[in-house]
Amino acid sequence: MIVPLVFDETARLVNLLDQTLLPAQEQWLQISTPAAMAEAIRMLRVRGAPAIGIAAAYGVVLSARLPLPDFRAAVHAAASLLESARPTAVNLPSAMRRMRRAAAQADSTQALLYEALLSEARAIEGEDRAAGRRLAIHGLGLFRSGMTLLTHCHTGGVATSGYGTALAPLLVARDEGMHLRAYVDETRPLLQGSRITAWELAKAGVDATLITDSMAAHVMKEGRVDAVIVGADRIAANGDTANKIGTYGLALLAKAHGLPFYVSAPLSTVDWDTPSGDGIVIEERASSEVTHGFGRSTAPAGVQVYNPAFDVTPGHLIKAIITEAGVVYPPFVASLAAARPKPAHGESMESIEDKPVHEVRPILGAAAPD
Amino acid sequence: MIVPLVFDETARLVNLLDQTLLPAQEQWLQISTPAAMAEAIRMLRVRGAPAIGIAAAYGVVLSARLPLPDFRAAVHAAASLLESARPTAVNLPSAMRRMRRAAAQADSTQALLYEALLSEARAIEGEDRAAGRRLAIHGLGLFRSGMTLLTHCHTGGVATSGYGTALAPLLVARDEGMHLRAYVDETRPLLQGSRITAWELAKAGVDATLITDSMAAHVMKEGRVDAVIVGADRIAANGDTANKIGTYGLALLAKAHGLPFYVSAPLSTVDWDTPSGDGIVIEERASSEVTHGFGRSTAPAGVQVYNPAFDVTPGHLIKAIITEAGVVYPPFVASLAAARPKPAHGESMESIEDKPVHEVRPILGAAAPD
Repeated sequence: MIVPLVFDETARLVNLLDQTLLPAQEQWLQISTPAAMAEAIRMLRVRGAPAIGIAAAYGVVLSARLPLPDFRAAVHAAASLLESARPTAVNLPSAMRRMRRAAAQADSTQALLYEALLSEARAIEGEDRAAGRRLAIHGLGLFRSGMTLLTHCHTGGVATSGYGTALAPLLVARDEGMHLRAYVDETRPLLQGSRITAWELAKAGVDATLITDSMAAHVMKEGRVDAVIVGADRIAANGDTANKIGTYGLALLAKAHGLPFYVSAPLSTVDWDTPSGDGIVIEERASSEVTHGFGRSTAPAGVQVYNPAFDVTPGHLIKAIITEAGVVYPPFVASLAAARPKPAHGESMESIEDKPVHEVRPILGAAAPD
Repeated sequence: MIVPLVFDETARLVNLLDQTLLPAQEQWLQISTPAAMAEAIRMLRVRGAPAIGIAAAYGVVLSARLPLPDFRAAVHAAASLLESARPTAVNLPSAMRRMRRAAAQADSTQALLYEALLSEARAIEGEDRAAGRRLAIHGLGLFRSGMTLLTHCHTGGVATSGYGTALAPLLVARDEGMHLRAYVDETRPLLQGSRITAWELAKAGVDATLITDSMAAHVMKEGRVDAVIVGADRIAANGDTANKIGTYGLALLAKAHGLPFYVSAPLSTVDWDTPSGDGIVIEERASSEVTHGFGRSTAPAGVQVYNPAFDVTPGHLIKAIITEAGVVYPPFVASLAAARPKPAHGESMESIEDKPVHEVRPILGAAAPD
């Protein structure tokens, strides 16, 4: 397990890994105020939607660490500050809703409030960790010891509470007596694969080999990999999956070589209101990521650049989607709908999605195809 | 036309573009000795097999620029020195054979020898330029004005005598009243695409857009390109083509999107003695190209790296091979054999391959498939 932060209960502060310095330095920052945590989130020192939600939750805890005359106002100010630190989907606002609710239910004294906030932050972290581990175990059911998986971008421990999504089976395999190896795409333009994934797999003792994105087809042709596993930024209701640029090409290359292509992601990644990938808008990012991605210019001044951050892999190229609740097989429209957590009578969808995963209905995926 | 060097007849020296400084600086070196030219070749200041052959030929000319007591020995020493500057295939030894032969036929006085050497160097350059232009014109026959071509690596003017191979149609289009646009893969690990191809196309006024290698599939899916065109390092007798790593993946992606995939290369690239791509050994290069490709480390210390420099694209993924003698279509075993220059009675194959292209038998390719 490779964690993005550790809460120190004695000192009442957060030790946070500064991910912007990876892989050259593994530096841990001591964060003792909500403002410092908001800065860390804003500066991408902690990144990955689940890790951001957890970091922000502990950031709210920090607002009650020292005696204050108006401790209730301080907690709410902290939650607002942290919620606006990044415009990421789902996890950050959801964590802040939970922290505000916990505060409202236990604010008679500051000591009680502090305990309630810490308990809720630990719950948010613990639920993510338990879900990550279940996802890993479901994923491992698809592989045999000795296999080699090709992965893209970073979807590992420090982006979550320690297990990640696409990296979860690789990070957990050894604990389960399985030996899996990895090829890691460096993932241009921002090199999350070489900077973070390769670092995490090395930390976890996984035999991993770094390649450039352009080498994946050749590596497949040479029979060096048995499957491809990637994470997801957003999954449409029909299984079409938006993920880091390069994922769609990998899916086509896997198909051409007869290799299974898996998406591994929590159910919170499914966007139930978007029927297909056609409804997913692709973010275009600054050209400097391509032309100055390594601290100096590697292209002529003024060159035109196209820099889409994501692409969409159609569901028909995906053999299965691995979730914390089980493995979901095509046809995804039906199997994802069946997997969707259902609210009890009178409960809103939002409150369901804030619930610990083990309290929601388990998934019933379709049978696995060959 | 984007040339790698210009011979200054008055000053009797070579103005040579230092390609190692591209794209940040366009610096021209004044080369006045064979030793300086050998250094420029060794340090990759001039690169690309045809450009190296031409540069070395002018390097031999420089050996006779100043009066010398033993001018014949100086010429032969220069040819030996230059021939060993890089272990590249075909062009360098072939150019040195031609220069030695020219020297042997005209060495009564140093003035005559100088003129003969200069004339032969100009012939080597002029033949390559004429072949590049013919290749460009044949290639343009495959495209319509308004089309957009995706290319990989660098196969343009400064690697040859001014027109290149895969870039030749793009560089010549405007002269022929056609408007072609380009998407350029940056081509990791060494970034020849962003460093040199994007620079050359900008110099030639071609509307070019730079992407990372991982964006090619998405660009194809969005309908932004009409065809893919790449060069070749070596073509087996059956059309299987070794080229810069990433080429094979592009060919698979082109097929998945129904786009034609063209190889553009001089007939000297065909290795008639290698029946298929299985016989082509893939060079593996230093891991630092991947981990330190931009002047600083972008991967954890000690990471395992796989860095194949080339891959092999099977002939069945190639719609046609564009050569200086015409467009060759599948089945390549037959069409390439028909295209092969035939020696006249009593002539050796080697002397044929040193001949100007317009003196060898023209190609008779099979009819174009749909």
